[in-house]
Amino acid sequence: MTHPFVPLSSDEATAIAQRLKYNADGLVPAIAQQHDSGEILMMAWMNATAVIETLSSARACYYSRSRAKLWRKGESSGQVQTLMDFRWDCDADTVLMMVDQKGVACHTGRRNCFFNAVRNGTAQIIAEVQIDPDKLYG
Amino acid sequence: MTHPFVPLSSDEATAIAQRLKYNADGLVPAIAQQHDSGEILMMAWMNATAVIETLSSARACYYSRSRAKLWRKGESSGQVQTLMDFRWDCDADTVLMMVDQKGVACHTGRRNCFFNAVRNGTAQIIAEVQIDPDKLYG
Repeated sequence: MTHPFVPLSSDEATAIAQRLKYNADGLVPAIAQQHDSGEILMMAWMNATAVIETLSSARACYYSRSRAKLWRKGESSGQVQTLMDFRWDCDADTVLMMVDQKGVACHTGRRNCFFNAVRNGTAQIIAEVQIDPDKLYG
Repeated sequence: MTHPFVPLSSDEATAIAQRLKYNADGLVPAIAQQHDSGEILMMAWMNATAVIETLSSARACYYSRSRAKLWRKGESSGQVQTLMDFRWDCDADTVLMMVDQKGVACHTGRRNCFFNAVRNGTAQIIAEVQIDPDKLYG
């Protein structure tokens, strides 16, 4: 996956979106993985419109459950995810996107969201903040 | 992550399970990633009991929504996942497990579940079956 995803036409994107199985809220979980390092950046949700937007623009677009609207990743922070590959699983109920993350994926300013881990039997934070969140959203 | 996860005591495992935020069904999504290659193997769900079982046994245990019971990965197929690290995200609503997968993760006999991808604008299968499912579950 060394070349960005070639944007799909509206018809092509719609056909892919129709293959996915959405939950009762019309959503499917989507994992974002950094295409070259394999680092798992984040997990968020997409509705069919977000899937079509992602495939048509070749940039990750999610559905924000808290804001109840499309969430074009990076539109306020600048930390966009360029789509490299779009995959889904055997049950068609989970999406995996290979992306090229600009800057950091996490709203805390960390590179990825999975910075909590078990160390010596207790919860520990294992990653440093790389960018001040006030600078991302200020 | 070159050493298997050290199993937690019941109290330690319960304390970690209590940090996670479960959805209305009492579940949290869990991503399994091969610890050395970075390959994303599968995504499934855990309830608090499955989290505690996983942390206490150092083997991945999920909750099967279709069978409505604990699903000790590999108990019928032999394709167990040895836990290497247990992490969770900024919102504490998604788990990431680094594991060492024996054999294949997918019930179709493929190494991982994410074998559907967009190629030339249409859906394509990009991975071969490695083990006949009849041999896994026969």
